[in-house]
Amino acid sequence: MKHRGRQPGRDAFCHAYAVILAGGSGTRFWPLSRQKHPKQLLKLFGDGTLLEQTAQRVRDLIPPERTYVFTSERLRQDVTRALPGVPADQVVAEPAARNTAPCIGLAAHEVLQRDPEGIMVVLPSDHVIRKPAAFRRALRAACQVAFAEGVSVILGVKPTSPHTGYGYVRLGRPERRVHGVDVYRVERFTEKPAYPLARRYVASGRYLWNGGMFLWRASTLLENLRRFQPAMARCLGRIARAGGIRAGDVLARLYPRLEKISIDYALMERVPNLLAVAADIGWSDVGSWSAAYELNPKDRDGNVRPARSLCVQSQDNMIVAPGKAVVTLGVSGLVIVDTPDALLVCDRERAQEVGKAVEEMQRLGWHDVL
Amino acid sequence: MKHRGRQPGRDAFCHAYAVILAGGSGTRFWPLSRQKHPKQLLKLFGDGTLLEQTAQRVRDLIPPERTYVFTSERLRQDVTRALPGVPADQVVAEPAARNTAPCIGLAAHEVLQRDPEGIMVVLPSDHVIRKPAAFRRALRAACQVAFAEGVSVILGVKPTSPHTGYGYVRLGRPERRVHGVDVYRVERFTEKPAYPLARRYVASGRYLWNGGMFLWRASTLLENLRRFQPAMARCLGRIARAGGIRAGDVLARLYPRLEKISIDYALMERVPNLLAVAADIGWSDVGSWSAAYELNPKDRDGNVRPARSLCVQSQDNMIVAPGKAVVTLGVSGLVIVDTPDALLVCDRERAQEVGKAVEEMQRLGWHDVL
Repeated sequence: MKHRGRQPGRDAFCHAYAVILAGGSGTRFWPLSRQKHPKQLLKLFGDGTLLEQTAQRVRDLIPPERTYVFTSERLRQDVTRALPGVPADQVVAEPAARNTAPCIGLAAHEVLQRDPEGIMVVLPSDHVIRKPAAFRRALRAACQVAFAEGVSVILGVKPTSPHTGYGYVRLGRPERRVHGVDVYRVERFTEKPAYPLARRYVASGRYLWNGGMFLWRASTLLENLRRFQPAMARCLGRIARAGGIRAGDVLARLYPRLEKISIDYALMERVPNLLAVAADIGWSDVGSWSAAYELNPKDRDGNVRPARSLCVQSQDNMIVAPGKAVVTLGVSGLVIVDTPDALLVCDRERAQEVGKAVEEMQRLGWHDVL
Repeated sequence: MKHRGRQPGRDAFCHAYAVILAGGSGTRFWPLSRQKHPKQLLKLFGDGTLLEQTAQRVRDLIPPERTYVFTSERLRQDVTRALPGVPADQVVAEPAARNTAPCIGLAAHEVLQRDPEGIMVVLPSDHVIRKPAAFRRALRAACQVAFAEGVSVILGVKPTSPHTGYGYVRLGRPERRVHGVDVYRVERFTEKPAYPLARRYVASGRYLWNGGMFLWRASTLLENLRRFQPAMARCLGRIARAGGIRAGDVLARLYPRLEKISIDYALMERVPNLLAVAADIGWSDVGSWSAAYELNPKDRDGNVRPARSLCVQSQDNMIVAPGKAVVTLGVSGLVIVDTPDALLVCDRERAQEVGKAVEEMQRLGWHDVL
């Protein structure tokens, strides 16, 4: 791996390419989310869909012309429509769902071809970041480090609670400050911890949440891929020589053969010289209706509810019912989500089980509402 | 009041006319019930709407040609459509809501004109009777008594619980049995009692619920009306001379001037020689979503729910969501009613407060969903 010295005064963002991962097909926001309308296309918080907000957040730093979006064929049209500035051929429908490593590798070839010094900024499309200015500060520092030093950088999230649903990153000593942001060496990745362990992690101040946001030079990524995932690197090389994201039949034939593996497992847990930028950015992966409840503004009884609703002696409910008049009477702690063809009424404490209910509906053959 | 001797062997039903009261506009079944679609037009139990079931129950005894239905102009078309056998001009839109006494008096003139010996069988249209055969037995006895003896008869309901929402009728000694049914003298009507009193009533075995089902000769009713409600009787006489239910402008002008009063207050609490038939007919006035829950068949977790529903660890819910897929998860004791433009989620114990919520919506001006 080549290390380049710092090049102060030069704006790394001139070389930055956004790689937005928008292929997810979660089920935890049923009935608002469907196979053809997953979480990243929902307005779960603030203005616009999560995907639109993701693109909006980096627009000032990375123009749409340097943005790539990876999604599925099923979602391609909607994703393209949601991001009007992004060239249509840069919204890529993966021929098969192969998790994140293959499409990031594919993007690396594309970026490298356009700019030998190109930096990839990998961003999930279905998370919430409530402090976009802090996010951009962290991103600027991470981009500077990745560009100047040719290392891999994780933009990690300062944990605000002992969440057991997230992966954690253990930090080494702080290396330095860049643009006012602390940069650390990463000691290791850890899986979702049990609650007592998560508490210790958070109390120690030595852990960050892994929010799936990574930066590196395209050349660095491909070097690491050749070293740690040689089979994948070879196959991606064949696709790249045939045209990469525009390789048509070759892409359709070879892509499904790539190993289905996340970039975390494939590379991040292995690469040397992994650095982390620690950011307090109001991040949430919005993992369930309960998380969406926590994020949204509430009335004085703790209800998240539409304008045309009457909540009589009702507390702490999450109510989504577009275009409807809603009355609740003496109910508390519920998630109520109403759509034209399906209705969910759920204990908020059990919102994480919605995905299981969707699996059950699949077994029951209710395909028209999935 | 003329008393005629019994005429055994003669079927009183040859002279029977059904007078179905279908003008109600309750709010307690919102959002399924609306101003233009009240309770009697809903399918809350069994097959068909409550109105259709009411007509169906007496069809074998009283043909549609001898059936009169009183409703509002707003509901007339739907009511006519629901009762195809009933001549359209016998579905009467009251020019104004005047409670039950005026329309019953109007019906009496109509019946008397067709049959000087005509018996009126007054029936609410929005109650449930789960034992129609027992109901018909009681009706036969009551009709026989009213016809043969020229008295007023209440078809009372044997109470099955100390319900505080019903009126009660205190019985005197049993007079006799007719067609195997006990006939009592009525001592007095009582208002809705408090719970301890209701318990004493039920334990005593001397009280019946007043289900609003009355029988008498049309001539007897009009005699009583002249005696106890002379002003109303005079006004109804003018309407009758102008054509009665077909009096058009005269009806429209005079009817709204009639006193707004129930037949209970106007007459039943005053007439001499009031008899009661005691009937165990599985009656309910279906006063709320909670009552509808009690009546309907449940799954093994106590849920009343549509075919396409998935109730995960959910008990004792009443779910109405026509045409929708419904998932509940960890919720119990709820009323959930979903319609294309409105949704109710309510603690089942508080279903009786739905009417108040509707009043609040009226204040808020949500007229399109009322």
